[in-house]
Amino acid sequence: MELDLYLSGAELTAQIVDIESVSGTEGPLADVVTSALSALPHLTVHRDGNAIVARTDFGRAERVVLAGHIDTVPVHGNLPSRLADGLLYGCGSCDMKSGVAVQLRLAAQLISAVRDVTYVFYDCEEVEAERNGLLRLTRTSPDLLTADFAILLEPTAAVVEGGCQGTLRADVIVTGERAHSARSWLGRNAIHAAGGILDVLRGYQPRQPAVDGLTYHEGLNAVGISGGVAGNVIPDECVVSVNYRFAPDRSAEAAADHVRQVFDGFEVRVTDVADGARPGLQQPAAASFVAVAGGPPRAKLGWTDVARFAALGIPAVNYGPGDPQLAHTRAEHVPVAQIEQCERTLLGWLRPV
Amino acid sequence: MELDLYLSGAELTAQIVDIESVSGTEGPLADVVTSALSALPHLTVHRDGNAIVARTDFGRAERVVLAGHIDTVPVHGNLPSRLADGLLYGCGSCDMKSGVAVQLRLAAQLISAVRDVTYVFYDCEEVEAERNGLLRLTRTSPDLLTADFAILLEPTAAVVEGGCQGTLRADVIVTGERAHSARSWLGRNAIHAAGGILDVLRGYQPRQPAVDGLTYHEGLNAVGISGGVAGNVIPDECVVSVNYRFAPDRSAEAAADHVRQVFDGFEVRVTDVADGARPGLQQPAAASFVAVAGGPPRAKLGWTDVARFAALGIPAVNYGPGDPQLAHTRAEHVPVAQIEQCERTLLGWLRPV
Repeated sequence: MELDLYLSGAELTAQIVDIESVSGTEGPLADVVTSALSALPHLTVHRDGNAIVARTDFGRAERVVLAGHIDTVPVHGNLPSRLADGLLYGCGSCDMKSGVAVQLRLAAQLISAVRDVTYVFYDCEEVEAERNGLLRLTRTSPDLLTADFAILLEPTAAVVEGGCQGTLRADVIVTGERAHSARSWLGRNAIHAAGGILDVLRGYQPRQPAVDGLTYHEGLNAVGISGGVAGNVIPDECVVSVNYRFAPDRSAEAAADHVRQVFDGFEVRVTDVADGARPGLQQPAAASFVAVAGGPPRAKLGWTDVARFAALGIPAVNYGPGDPQLAHTRAEHVPVAQIEQCERTLLGWLRPV
Repeated sequence: MELDLYLSGAELTAQIVDIESVSGTEGPLADVVTSALSALPHLTVHRDGNAIVARTDFGRAERVVLAGHIDTVPVHGNLPSRLADGLLYGCGSCDMKSGVAVQLRLAAQLISAVRDVTYVFYDCEEVEAERNGLLRLTRTSPDLLTADFAILLEPTAAVVEGGCQGTLRADVIVTGERAHSARSWLGRNAIHAAGGILDVLRGYQPRQPAVDGLTYHEGLNAVGISGGVAGNVIPDECVVSVNYRFAPDRSAEAAADHVRQVFDGFEVRVTDVADGARPGLQQPAAASFVAVAGGPPRAKLGWTDVARFAALGIPAVNYGPGDPQLAHTRAEHVPVAQIEQCERTLLGWLRPV
């Protein structure tokens, strides 16, 4: 099958949503994206695993990256896509295949523009950082990413969202002593002891700091728990996996220190941490885009790959169709009007000459 | 290879321990047991899968069952067997191949006796009840099990242990609502809510009731916990698997009611339940055995197949070599002196004529 980049934004989104691409299985979608872009003579297309970079060469003074990930969280009974009352439903419709559809429609339409454009599509954004396709590109092909400004088409309900919060994952571990469950008093039950970890989580008060004028909102949550040996054995280990989302006024290191302090008395193993990014909206390229996008910018709460661009020294914002609060929910959907609005705004800013 | 029933009790135990027979893989051991028993002209041998029943026909007024399971929990780096300082080590040495060796030695020696004897060897005691070989025999060949009294040679350190506690497994479930972990306040974290289940377990006061003169000791424990969708999702379900060990003054039904009451407010799904057995030591056959075994009888805390005999209307006790607290441990072992003591006691009670 092939993608038709001349369908409407909603139709193209539906086509992309219906090609399942849970993280790690993006191959079929990456293939049709590669094939559709390769058919456009004004683009130079590079493929790296399941990531694709397509660049214009209009000879403009300024180059902008439009980036989006093509993977989704696991399907949750929400495929195939369906359209109802101007809303397109389906796994990835909001996060972020509607943004990907906007990228693809712009790639097809902008056979010339006032800025050069680098379209980036990448894999494995929804899983651990080490597998992230954009991270891989920053290592294998940093030259392909060079730009003055980047827009990540993550869902923001078509509002510019600045910066992003950092994210840290850690295993908080409590141990006990095995025994036969018929004589439980001879052991120490690690699952019961994990109640102490859940007590900490239940009582935690998250910060809501202002950074460069935008208000962030932190959170510390269990995202996994496991323990148990057999149905007749008192378990000797229980592991609670926690996710700390921290505002960009706190470094990854400070976040790790904070989590260790919060779980003082338990073993804490930090498994994954990614710095946030400060808003950076005072940069000229960012300011010019904010001006055409309209409306006051907001703080981005979810970690996004704007932080990777920030780390490369490229100012970046989030701007895409879809309510970010619907991301990863079973009922995720995107208003067709927002798909069209984002495309219009970006077309107006990049302007075919 | 063949078993030599005229080796010492310790040597025969070692021979049996060294024939691996983790639940479900008892075939090779069942074969050599069948072959050894079939060579004894005073026994009629029946085979049912990996269970073996061998019966004397001395024409006595009273018949007693001597029963033991031939399977073990998974090997844990504790094979082959080794003898050190009068202790025989190895997987199954305590639970309960030393008891099986005593059964086999008695089967060979008792070419006559004051009581008829039914020797029962069975498979899959260490796994879920539905696979238990003794349960299968009660369904396929109940006539073969008919008796006035049964002794199960489970490890009791050569002390008569009466009855057994019941065991119930249940999943206690708490639900929440998924959300992206960057905006956790939009969801309800089911793992955090499971803290309420762990609170109940941590505060639980187990009963220690006296039943027919023996003191039991209950326990209610988490034996498993699981929850979590992905590292960036607020989880919408957490399941705590609990194991309730209950004294035999409480029926399976009453035990289930109790667990539901204890976890009032949470969803409780009972997954597995087995009645205990009252001690029944006032029965004449039981009383006569207790008299020769010596020492005051104790309550059996772990569930054993005495409950199956109790359900058939056959009074039954546990009596065998090995410390029950070593069952299922890597360092499990059995004192050679206890193997000999159990054999002596049983020989004295069954008396060759």
